[in-house]
Amino acid sequence: MSVSLHSILPKQLYTGRKRRVMRALYAGRFQPFHLGHLEILKKILTEHYEVVILVGSAQLSHTLENPFTAGERIQMITETIDEEKISKRVYIIPIDDINRHSVWVTHVESLTPSFDVVFSNEPLTVRLFKEAGHAVKQTELMNRSKWSGTEIRRRMLNDEAWEECVPSSVARVIKEIDGVSRIKELSESDKIK
Amino acid sequence: MSVSLHSILPKQLYTGRKRRVMRALYAGRFQPFHLGHLEILKKILTEHYEVVILVGSAQLSHTLENPFTAGERIQMITETIDEEKISKRVYIIPIDDINRHSVWVTHVESLTPSFDVVFSNEPLTVRLFKEAGHAVKQTELMNRSKWSGTEIRRRMLNDEAWEECVPSSVARVIKEIDGVSRIKELSESDKIK
Amino acid sequence: MSVSLHSILPKQLYTGRKRRVMRALYAGRFQPFHLGHLEILKKILTEHYEVVILVGSAQLSHTLENPFTAGERIQMITETIDEEKISKRVYIIPIDDINRHSVWVTHVESLTPSFDVVFSNEPLTVRLFKEAGHAVKQTELMNRSKWSGTEIRRRMLNDEAWEECVPSSVARVIKEIDGVSRIKELSESDKIK
Amino acid sequence: MSVSLHSILPKQLYTGRKRRVMRALYAGRFQPFHLGHLEILKKILTEHYEVVILVGSAQLSHTLENPFTAGERIQMITETIDEEKISKRVYIIPIDDINRHSVWVTHVESLTPSFDVVFSNEPLTVRLFKEAGHAVKQTELMNRSKWSGTEIRRRMLNDEAWEECVPSSVARVIKEIDGVSRIKELSESDKIK
Amino acid sequence: MSVSLHSILPKQLYTGRKRRVMRALYAGRFQPFHLGHLEILKKILTEHYEVVILVGSAQLSHTLENPFTAGERIQMITETIDEEKISKRVYIIPIDDINRHSVWVTHVESLTPSFDVVFSNEPLTVRLFKEAGHAVKQTELMNRSKWSGTEIRRRMLNDEAWEECVPSSVARVIKEIDGVSRIKELSESDKIK
Amino acid sequence: MSVSLHSILPKQLYTGRKRRVMRALYAGRFQPFHLGHLEILKKILTEHYEVVILVGSAQLSHTLENPFTAGERIQMITETIDEEKISKRVYIIPIDDINRHSVWVTHVESLTPSFDVVFSNEPLTVRLFKEAGHAVKQTELMNRSKWSGTEIRRRMLNDEAWEECVPSSVARVIKEIDGVSRIKELSESDKIK
Repeated sequence: MSVSLHSILPKQLYTGRKRRVMRALYAGRFQPFHLGHLEILKKILTEHYEVVILVGSAQLSHTLENPFTAGERIQMITETIDEEKISKRVYIIPIDDINRHSVWVTHVESLTPSFDVVFSNEPLTVRLFKEAGHAVKQTELMNRSKWSGTEIRRRMLNDEAWEECVPSSVARVIKEIDGVSRIKELSESDKIK
Repeated sequence: MSVSLHSILPKQLYTGRKRRVMRALYAGRFQPFHLGHLEILKKILTEHYEVVILVGSAQLSHTLENPFTAGERIQMITETIDEEKISKRVYIIPIDDINRHSVWVTHVESLTPSFDVVFSNEPLTVRLFKEAGHAVKQTELMNRSKWSGTEIRRRMLNDEAWEECVPSSVARVIKEIDGVSRIKELSESDKIK
Repeated sequence: MSVSLHSILPKQLYTGRKRRVMRALYAGRFQPFHLGHLEILKKILTEHYEVVILVGSAQLSHTLENPFTAGERIQMITETIDEEKISKRVYIIPIDDINRHSVWVTHVESLTPSFDVVFSNEPLTVRLFKEAGHAVKQTELMNRSKWSGTEIRRRMLNDEAWEECVPSSVARVIKEIDGVSRIKELSESDKIK
Repeated sequence: MSVSLHSILPKQLYTGRKRRVMRALYAGRFQPFHLGHLEILKKILTEHYEVVILVGSAQLSHTLENPFTAGERIQMITETIDEEKISKRVYIIPIDDINRHSVWVTHVESLTPSFDVVFSNEPLTVRLFKEAGHAVKQTELMNRSKWSGTEIRRRMLNDEAWEECVPSSVARVIKEIDGVSRIKELSESDKIK
Repeated sequence: MSVSLHSILPKQLYTGRKRRVMRALYAGRFQPFHLGHLEILKKILTEHYEVVILVGSAQLSHTLENPFTAGERIQMITETIDEEKISKRVYIIPIDDINRHSVWVTHVESLTPSFDVVFSNEPLTVRLFKEAGHAVKQTELMNRSKWSGTEIRRRMLNDEAWEECVPSSVARVIKEIDGVSRIKELSESDKIK
Repeated sequence: MSVSLHSILPKQLYTGRKRRVMRALYAGRFQPFHLGHLEILKKILTEHYEVVILVGSAQLSHTLENPFTAGERIQMITETIDEEKISKRVYIIPIDDINRHSVWVTHVESLTPSFDVVFSNEPLTVRLFKEAGHAVKQTELMNRSKWSGTEIRRRMLNDEAWEECVPSSVARVIKEIDGVSRIKELSESDKIK
């Protein structure tokens, strides 16, 4: 899994202006960044020279659905792509939700370098980019019994094996920030109120 | 100027956890990214393994002081560091101003990977990071008659030579987005009102 | 249904200052504007010289509950009142929700021309205007099996007849913006996550 | 000046879809709405079937530059166009500034019915609509010694004749809300601090 | 219950700098302030010289979960502590939720006098203060069949005895603002939609 | 100056409901809280049973005009009124500016206990409360060569005697937070840019 992807990419793409035509945007919340995300990222990189990873809902953290801060998620991704030796071709941009879907795509465009195609599985994201005239490709869902944020957070809550669902760098970051305790404590909210 | 900096960096730093200790934050508005910024960035990279470039006042654009969007500024930086072959070790994070200085550093921390030292010349930025307990280094001001955002924007307005103040990639981006016309048209605001 | 309402209105009301006393505010979300809304609007116009239509939750769009942008809803209303020949006496003001109910009425007052009575069926809207000292009238709910936003959106999702629930201008606008596809795509959100 | 403009407009324009092609957007702050604005509005209506008046900086009021609330400005405009018998063909939409110029046009589009051409004299507004691909026409500045918001507010502060610069309905509204006292009291701010 | 607590407090604590070391923060939403809150407040005051009451979710009001404005809640508390003769040692600070949990504690710190320990029962509040390095004590839940906001609001809705759950001053304030009618009217929202 | 004001207040005022009629609101920015503010506060307390101190522009800090956070300003005030033995009758509420003057008074009302009269010297504050129907009294400006925020901040910048302009508790707080260095460092902003 630590093979460099540089060799896979056709040489002729990396020539001046052409390269920009080959930049993809990959949008997700990455709560946390798991092996399914990594697979998709690597696939995208076989066909596009660069990828802008959009870390969505950047303002959210410390909830059961969104336990990690954008900074923590970015740390997970940077350590993983560094280990995978693909960091040179990846940009990572945190983007807040805004309470106005109708301007969200323009908001994204104003905070990212230009891109040519969008990868996402979230129906709202897909629809908004389509209505704004972007090419959108839905990403394949793979191995959902393990590679799913919901499943991983469920395992953390129930002391089941979650490390096998994420890259080793991500497991390390989550341990350093004491992420499992955080999720467990937050789950108490539903019991009192 | 297009020499890779990888050779300069002592090997032993790039070993697991150690590496994280050597990450620097470099904060600026980059309106536009000029040769002075590039010099500082390269200096920082000789002493730190990675740099997080904080593109500040990310929400601002289309004013005389802040003509370019965060996305345009990120495009300027990504094309430059790619040409300079230092992109592998650079992260670029856009950060909005928030109207509450007292929480700004915490806001930055929640949107970036961890960092060990901050580089900035802006007194407010310096003060806020210091009060929050961060190590802060002021960057050296070099060649101010050319390498200054104010000076470059002034030259653009007056049809003087501005291309010599910025990396060639930046000049190319500014031409593509018709940046000089934008600045000239915005300057009309002061005349009417 | 395309009869002008001007003849119905007593002449003596339309004399200078008096007229202002007869302005009503009609608040709703209009997702979409349907025949029930049109009936109420026409009834209000028989007793008040002018109506300010408040298009509430203006910031919302692209959700199952709130599929249409404020602009699209305003377009639906303007084309309908034009066809009905009542546009001269109707103002349309979009108003965002604000996350502070206690100042919402003051917020509305600062964005609309003055008004004398409020028409609404939404309990929160009714309560807030009452506490602020406004006269409030609840609108009659008519023909709820057809004239209800919830019902119309349900029909769109299930390919049932929805056109008969809205003015023909509204049906035309919804087709132009491809509104039914939008709702169907957004409904996918519940399935993945 | 109180002649209906309906007769001026070529009949063939008002036929179904065609009509929408002829809608203009007229953007301004209207602090206050003066005779220059009215002249421009009437000119636009000779060539376009409908006008959407964008009341900009809607959130501002109670400052020397922006003394009137959006609601008060809308009241000024509605009373004037009613007197001028052109209300049937005019929509009035208040729009807040947002601290992100790069998404402002999309924001406007999501809150207004569709439009085909923009009229404005404000360089930033002109530039933003142009960059977003809209047709923009600059409005002619007429009779600036009287028909200018700055001049009118100056006259109010100095007890000079300001009523001759605005439609009589506007003068009436300003008197009702005690607008001149408001401006005078606010001007005290500069003296203390 | 109206005994002054001053006598209970060890004298030596109230001497210059020492005193500041003994300030506690007590966080809650207080919808409404009930006898359980009062018991906790009095307990805290036996061990700390001063208490800062944080009135959380200050922006919320007029919902079934959060019926009262921050001002109304502050009025409830001030009248109660005045009757209890403990007002001298209590500060009351309203704090809005912010949609960014990661900066919330810093936000609180920037709006309150310094404090040494935090009392709360809300898991998210507890977690956030802990992660920020504060000492946190969970408050004991007492007499939950009566002393609970949820229970009190339920009783109000169903015309059951709620006055016995709150200090008499609070009951008086709620009657003055017609609080029970407000809750009942808001409960209609679920029925229509 | 450390005499308790309790004796001055007529007994009969402090009887149940009557007391509420005598609550004053005293609005300011208190950058910092100085001897002029204290004099006014004490005067108000001779005629009103309680005072709500509104700490305005609460979100601002770390600028030359607004160097101190709301929390720091509240700390200055609480330590002073404690020393003056008037804390029992004083509430302190921080209030953010909102970028919508037209709703600001309603915003204040929703965050404070009820009040009967407003004391302020700021023309905008005075005007807004008046238009909302509140009784407003302008405070007397005393000893402006010493008792003025502008003057005190100027003295701090120039190493002149500023301690004589503020209560001793305030001088102590400013020293603890290293306030003079903060102002000096922030003043560097004007020199670079």
